[in-house]
Amino acid sequence: MIVEARLMVSPRMLERLSAYRRLLAKWIAEKRERIYSHELGALAGATPAQVRRDVMTIGFTGSPARGYDATGLLQRIGELLDPQEPVRVALLGVGFLGRAVLDYFSGRSPNYAIVAAFDVSSEKVGRVIHGVRCYHIEELDEQAREQAIDLGVIAVPAPVAQSVAERACRAGLRGLLNFAPAKLHVPPEVHVENVDLAVSLEKVAFFARHGSRRREVQS
Amino acid sequence: MIVEARLMVSPRMLERLSAYRRLLAKWIAEKRERIYSHELGALAGATPAQVRRDVMTIGFTGSPARGYDATGLLQRIGELLDPQEPVRVALLGVGFLGRAVLDYFSGRSPNYAIVAAFDVSSEKVGRVIHGVRCYHIEELDEQAREQAIDLGVIAVPAPVAQSVAERACRAGLRGLLNFAPAKLHVPPEVHVENVDLAVSLEKVAFFARHGSRRREVQS
Repeated sequence: MIVEARLMVSPRMLERLSAYRRLLAKWIAEKRERIYSHELGALAGATPAQVRRDVMTIGFTGSPARGYDATGLLQRIGELLDPQEPVRVALLGVGFLGRAVLDYFSGRSPNYAIVAAFDVSSEKVGRVIHGVRCYHIEELDEQAREQAIDLGVIAVPAPVAQSVAERACRAGLRGLLNFAPAKLHVPPEVHVENVDLAVSLEKVAFFARHGSRRREVQS
Repeated sequence: MIVEARLMVSPRMLERLSAYRRLLAKWIAEKRERIYSHELGALAGATPAQVRRDVMTIGFTGSPARGYDATGLLQRIGELLDPQEPVRVALLGVGFLGRAVLDYFSGRSPNYAIVAAFDVSSEKVGRVIHGVRCYHIEELDEQAREQAIDLGVIAVPAPVAQSVAERACRAGLRGLLNFAPAKLHVPPEVHVENVDLAVSLEKVAFFARHGSRRREVQS
């Protein structure tokens, strides 16, 4: 009998699954075999009920008395989150941020590979930087096809971010991780994830000022 | 009569308020005077009901027929989010990522100032980089007191992130923006905001693979 199950994954749930996975991997390395929902929740910033809902949603089961099988749950999350083949990523913009991104991802994950970098500076185009060849941005279309590039990381200055995003969409990239402090307008089939450093800093400052993550603030 | 109102602000609500603020500023620049909850919601990724709840929570009112006064709402959000005085920030780690952070924040906001940078490399210590003086990390305690530093941005490699965070806590910093892919253990009064580039890339890849931000995924 074939059972077809369908599941809904929201961006927040995906963040939680990522967090569970890292915790599970750590605990398995420490030779733990079974994990409780309250343990996962406490360190992933979720309630035990939310953990149980998430785990049920991805089609895994445990028992209230014995918890979850850590290895089984880790594997199930991996099946869901990991691409079947390594995702091929283009770095768009090789300034300080672009180099930090290259540094960050080089060799960190078998699932993601930055296969090409793009810039407009003649000092960078044609060079190999942190092991990745840098092309002129005008070659994006050609290279995206030849190298079957899936995603782009936008690390260019804000004023040119939109035009670079449009170029990336024309070249067939299906997702963009955007570091530029600019709202990108792209076709609906292209997924954009914004990393806004200013908002992050605003959050730290607010909660540092008011003393904790969630508290009463005098109005 | 003095009315004391109290309000609860969660990290998610803070993100939404940040988003509303940017949209309001843009619309005011385009000479719009009144804004509806459904407009704010559509572009900030919230439902109209959530926008109305957030706005009510911060003690501002509009009318269903005429919407919100854009300038008044912008000002109210600013009163809540903006520090009374510029927040004084230390950059911890002056590699590519640290320089990108300096680039990113230099002159961008009157509310945040990176007043000092710290590293261990003799090539950096003593120099002025992007307008900011670089000190040895061992001087953090002294400089934090002298320069009244509030927050730290952790941009060091993962293996040393915890020891740098501990040093920052000892030096009296009350909040940390952490870019290192490492879970930091700090006293409860110190707020940590993690920016995890790997999780961000995982999200783009997942939604790019499955076609949209929230959809059915074959299990």
